[in-house]
Amino acid sequence: MKIAVLGGTGHLGAGLSLRLAIAGYEVIIGSRSEEKARIKAEEYGRMLSERGHSGKFSGMTNSEASKSCDIAIVTVPWEQAFLLAENLKEELAGKIVVSPLVPMRKDGKTFRYVELPEGSAGKRVARILKESKVVSAYQCIPADRFADLEASFEWDVIVCSDHEDAKETVMEITDSIEGLKALDGGNLENSKLVESLTVLILNLMTLNGLKGLGIKFC
Amino acid sequence: MKIAVLGGTGHLGAGLSLRLAIAGYEVIIGSRSEEKARIKAEEYGRMLSERGHSGKFSGMTNSEASKSCDIAIVTVPWEQAFLLAENLKEELAGKIVVSPLVPMRKDGKTFRYVELPEGSAGKRVARILKESKVVSAYQCIPADRFADLEASFEWDVIVCSDHEDAKETVMEITDSIEGLKALDGGNLENSKLVESLTVLILNLMTLNGLKGLGIKFC
Repeated sequence: MKIAVLGGTGHLGAGLSLRLAIAGYEVIIGSRSEEKARIKAEEYGRMLSERGHSGKFSGMTNSEASKSCDIAIVTVPWEQAFLLAENLKEELAGKIVVSPLVPMRKDGKTFRYVELPEGSAGKRVARILKESKVVSAYQCIPADRFADLEASFEWDVIVCSDHEDAKETVMEITDSIEGLKALDGGNLENSKLVESLTVLILNLMTLNGLKGLGIKFC
Repeated sequence: MKIAVLGGTGHLGAGLSLRLAIAGYEVIIGSRSEEKARIKAEEYGRMLSERGHSGKFSGMTNSEASKSCDIAIVTVPWEQAFLLAENLKEELAGKIVVSPLVPMRKDGKTFRYVELPEGSAGKRVARILKESKVVSAYQCIPADRFADLEASFEWDVIVCSDHEDAKETVMEITDSIEGLKALDGGNLENSKLVESLTVLILNLMTLNGLKGLGIKFC
């Protein structure tokens, strides 16, 4: 299975690309610039081989990556993600598209969740990509710690979708990453709660002087 | 410090009463019926002494308990809690009042959060008890497991309030209970997110066939 990480040069993109490759998936790094994507693909490959892992990476434009993949994960900043989705409608038709997007803005020292007319970022992506199977996941993962290959963790990942088969596939992929455990979060309607939870965690870290926290139900 | 657990005969009330007493607090069980409260107080005392703990319990009507306490925790079902608060306005004036309330209704197999005009149950309690210092906490604790003295756990408790001193006091009390760690959740505005999170956890348990889950940020 080929997984495209659109915006795979960013922080969450790095962690997902590296760890999906370790889990055995073929990873396509997508970026606006093909060159940047290729450089990152090489860099990720080197990072893994230095640690004794093998990993299959390629670098493409977001459009080519979307065409070539079976599943796409949209890890660009949320303000740009919806336009990107609009532009890739055809390439992503019939495929699983994962939204880890959390619409939020800084409000003094803390963040606030930005309400969208569709109810959540996951729902907005689904409204745009009507021909794709949209799955909401990976919001609550702290990107920096996730991208650090020396870090270990035990986090739960809540997965929501209106497409049962797509949800199951993303849950399987998630479970194949060491330290992550997928939980069925029900339908896409629930994405709002998960997205809001991410804002809560960010604010808890700021208010309590903590860093790199994920979530575990235990 | 005397802590009244209003509705202390219920499940969350049982866990809080028992564990607060173990932590060294004098606990007043509040109930509509004085007799029921007294019987529970004796029962809780016996449960602790059987396990080699000592604990100070007394049983009173909710009104007497509110008069006698320094801090009150409202553990009655949310539909009844607001009327109770209305009726105890004077008794609770000047005191810290803790709301673990989560307004929700069953919707098929899962729960949904009930939107209140004030924004959250914590905010509604604060609107009613204008002379009290309202603190929101303990929503995400699974009541049955918490009441089971054989159970061990490691859960985070998010504490929100517009009264910094009251928030600090409740955080200290929380930290004194073994297995609980208090996190500063900011002001009472954030209570809605924490209350909604409880609904999410309940639904995650139903959807994934899990039981007795609390939350840990790690």
